[in-house]
Amino acid sequence: MSRELCAAELAEMLGGALVGATDANVCGVASLEDAEPGQISFLANKKYHGLVLPSRASIVLVPEDFEPVPPEGRAWIVCANTNMAFQKVVMHFAPPAVEHSPGIHPTAVVDESAQVAESVHVAPNAVVDASATIGAGSVIGAGSYIGQEVQIGENCLIYPNVTILERCVLGNRVTIHSGTTIGSDGYAYVFGPTGHQKIPQVGIVQIDDDVEIGACSAVDRARFGRTWIQQGTKIDNLVQIAHNVVVGQCCLVIAQVGVAGSSRLGNGVVLGGQSGVTGHVRIGDGVMVAGQSAVARDVVPGLKLMGSPASEVRVHMRQQSQVRNLGRLKDTVRDLQKKLDELQARLDG
Amino acid sequence: MSRELCAAELAEMLGGALVGATDANVCGVASLEDAEPGQISFLANKKYHGLVLPSRASIVLVPEDFEPVPPEGRAWIVCANTNMAFQKVVMHFAPPAVEHSPGIHPTAVVDESAQVAESVHVAPNAVVDASATIGAGSVIGAGSYIGQEVQIGENCLIYPNVTILERCVLGNRVTIHSGTTIGSDGYAYVFGPTGHQKIPQVGIVQIDDDVEIGACSAVDRARFGRTWIQQGTKIDNLVQIAHNVVVGQCCLVIAQVGVAGSSRLGNGVVLGGQSGVTGHVRIGDGVMVAGQSAVARDVVPGLKLMGSPASEVRVHMRQQSQVRNLGRLKDTVRDLQKKLDELQARLDG
Amino acid sequence: MSRELCAAELAEMLGGALVGATDANVCGVASLEDAEPGQISFLANKKYHGLVLPSRASIVLVPEDFEPVPPEGRAWIVCANTNMAFQKVVMHFAPPAVEHSPGIHPTAVVDESAQVAESVHVAPNAVVDASATIGAGSVIGAGSYIGQEVQIGENCLIYPNVTILERCVLGNRVTIHSGTTIGSDGYAYVFGPTGHQKIPQVGIVQIDDDVEIGACSAVDRARFGRTWIQQGTKIDNLVQIAHNVVVGQCCLVIAQVGVAGSSRLGNGVVLGGQSGVTGHVRIGDGVMVAGQSAVARDVVPGLKLMGSPASEVRVHMRQQSQVRNLGRLKDTVRDLQKKLDELQARLDG
Repeated sequence: MSRELCAAELAEMLGGALVGATDANVCGVASLEDAEPGQISFLANKKYHGLVLPSRASIVLVPEDFEPVPPEGRAWIVCANTNMAFQKVVMHFAPPAVEHSPGIHPTAVVDESAQVAESVHVAPNAVVDASATIGAGSVIGAGSYIGQEVQIGENCLIYPNVTILERCVLGNRVTIHSGTTIGSDGYAYVFGPTGHQKIPQVGIVQIDDDVEIGACSAVDRARFGRTWIQQGTKIDNLVQIAHNVVVGQCCLVIAQVGVAGSSRLGNGVVLGGQSGVTGHVRIGDGVMVAGQSAVARDVVPGLKLMGSPASEVRVHMRQQSQVRNLGRLKDTVRDLQKKLDELQARLDG
Repeated sequence: MSRELCAAELAEMLGGALVGATDANVCGVASLEDAEPGQISFLANKKYHGLVLPSRASIVLVPEDFEPVPPEGRAWIVCANTNMAFQKVVMHFAPPAVEHSPGIHPTAVVDESAQVAESVHVAPNAVVDASATIGAGSVIGAGSYIGQEVQIGENCLIYPNVTILERCVLGNRVTIHSGTTIGSDGYAYVFGPTGHQKIPQVGIVQIDDDVEIGACSAVDRARFGRTWIQQGTKIDNLVQIAHNVVVGQCCLVIAQVGVAGSSRLGNGVVLGGQSGVTGHVRIGDGVMVAGQSAVARDVVPGLKLMGSPASEVRVHMRQQSQVRNLGRLKDTVRDLQKKLDELQARLDG
Repeated sequence: MSRELCAAELAEMLGGALVGATDANVCGVASLEDAEPGQISFLANKKYHGLVLPSRASIVLVPEDFEPVPPEGRAWIVCANTNMAFQKVVMHFAPPAVEHSPGIHPTAVVDESAQVAESVHVAPNAVVDASATIGAGSVIGAGSYIGQEVQIGENCLIYPNVTILERCVLGNRVTIHSGTTIGSDGYAYVFGPTGHQKIPQVGIVQIDDDVEIGACSAVDRARFGRTWIQQGTKIDNLVQIAHNVVVGQCCLVIAQVGVAGSSRLGNGVVLGGQSGVTGHVRIGDGVMVAGQSAVARDVVPGLKLMGSPASEVRVHMRQQSQVRNLGRLKDTVRDLQKKLDELQARLDG
């Protein structure tokens, strides 16, 4: 936590125009709804427009087109990008980040054949298995397991209770959150006379630079070759990436998504929460898939998809609207039927 | 396991009327279908009505409106609430609960700055990091990680291999099941010239008294302020709660649900399995959402929702029924077309 | 990694006919798309037919009906089952499997009352609690927790950071992947005057021989009796199996599936990814459920289901097609309306 800031200091720090109580002081941040006097908040999402005036926040960062004036004793700071400006304030008041001093905790078990750079932090009860290598500045959290011949680059952050299994390869600045498993076996069986026979999964998972993977997710190792998460991709919590999947660069894979085996995502693909991609499909660059959708076919670059099975958003929306209007269509048909019967009766009578 | 019980003892214990073989003895519980002679079962769900007579259970707890009489050698005990009565029997025959004696196992790593009450049980290979505090009667399971400055109240039960990260706060009588992560980073990036830049998540997770969270779930820390699970809420397995979400009191969040960032649930909300709530929505008290549904808008209190996207149950049901009857509607339209053509021909001819 | 193989050796090893460059050598495997010269690939999925000729793979295993001839310098080997043949090649070039030598690592904590066969491998920082038994040839991975009175059979493979809680029973040759929890409490509460009261879950999980359970999955213990995964069933990652569920023999339960309490699956049931089964339903032998579907009723054996709620595939497909054609139906109705109005005007006029 850092020291109190006054409105004028903040306006200068953020390069924004100060309106209202120039003497307002704040010592912390909060949402518009939760803020108490002495706290600063922000308006970034238009949805919350109506919460600014009722808020008790002493100072609010508002966008340039925000019209209401601050009530007595409160101040606005007008910012070009309130979200980014607020983040600066958040960081000013943030507690110091957790520090990881270099060194291997005495309760950690590091195989003598592992190569661990001097600046690496290996936390209590972590295990680094034979022939693993860990680059400078990386952190291995408490209770995490780093398998045989795993390669971890520099400045990676492996949170506590992560499992990275044999031979998987991580680049630099990769972050893996707690509870996640990298390199579990791909799900593959052939049905034989004595039941499902396992097809051995002898490939690896390769995770490139600047990838972040959330908590309680699973990335399966390839049947052969690699399951591959490319540079800059961000994967959320509870996501399933099956064997031999390729996720391109700078993709966003939101929570609880599942991608089935051998599918290939291009660069900049966005998969909404709880959506699914079936096996062996190819999704082009920049495709966006809405939450809970299911992609079952190849998708050309740039499409926006929705639905289960997914179609283009506008097609899906039109269908949804047609379904919502089915009652009306039914009524229309009933009216027609009646009119027609009357007409017929008139002709017959 | 406890001693054998006879029908008369049971009837007295449960305050129910005994019908049939008063000398039947039981030494264990089972479902109607799985029961063997010498076991007791129960009928709570009408769906299983037809399983009572064929069951081999020596004694069955039946509701007051159950009419069939017990066959030779078997007995019914008629109970006002068979489910609760059966639970008493279950507990009678249950093995003793696992005991956790006070003390820190020698292989656990507890930072010297942590404050751990004397009656706390810290299991083997658990890690309690700097400045954490753990209240009286709490249990930290094997291999669990309690982060820096984490506050855990009294009589909490943290199962093995749980991860609770820095500064998160748990009230009293909180239970967290294995594999779950509390305080992973919220998923937040801004797209910049070098790809997605992470927005630091410096808030916490606050979990109030009497909350239970299942296995392999993830609750992300807030971007600022807190992600907040309020008193008495019960969360199932594999659930994702994103940053800055507020879950009100006494909610039920069933398995594999996902709630996206900054959404707020009122009290007593029920989210069915595999349902999803999009970001920044507000769900009123007592709202019930069916399984696999998707809530994408604010919901007023008390509504029952279904569908993806969710609408009110009766609206959704009507639409579903209209869709199921589309074939008939199509036929009607075809008939109309035919009739109209005939009429036209008649007029023209 | 094993030595280089030439086309003739491979053809002999696989019992396939060699076509093209008989002198081609390979030293590794890859997919058609990723292969470099010196690698071998295969065509098993017709979808990839067009990738064979452009592939840079020196040798490709092709099915008997594949017509194109290999370009200069490349070879085909014609196989009856290219998938199985390729697996042989994969295994030839695979790195040696991780070995687990018998013995208990000094950092593992094994209660003195536990019975661990001599040939068992207990990895660093694993915990085996009181009265647990572990059969010959089994492996307990780093950081895994084996609870009190747990019984694990022979030749089981428990990966790192798995949690198996008290009294659960595993057969022989059971594999459990990392991050998974076996025996968490079933989700059961009764609403009382002071909120939701927990119903104690005193049953167990029983997992029979040859079952494999993926990463980050959860199988809840029964309220009483057992949650039961029968022989030969394979469960994928991030799957939720609730209390008192019975999963029959040789089922396939794909990633992110959820099965709610007390439901019973027959033998050979296949549940597609992200599908859900509601509580207390019975699914017959051999039923197949498509991904993202929701089964809410009993299902007779052999059905193929799709949709949320699920209906028979052909019924669901027809409905989907009718919905897609709603625009056309609407147009037809509008035409009818117009014609009818004209007819009426003609009669009136």
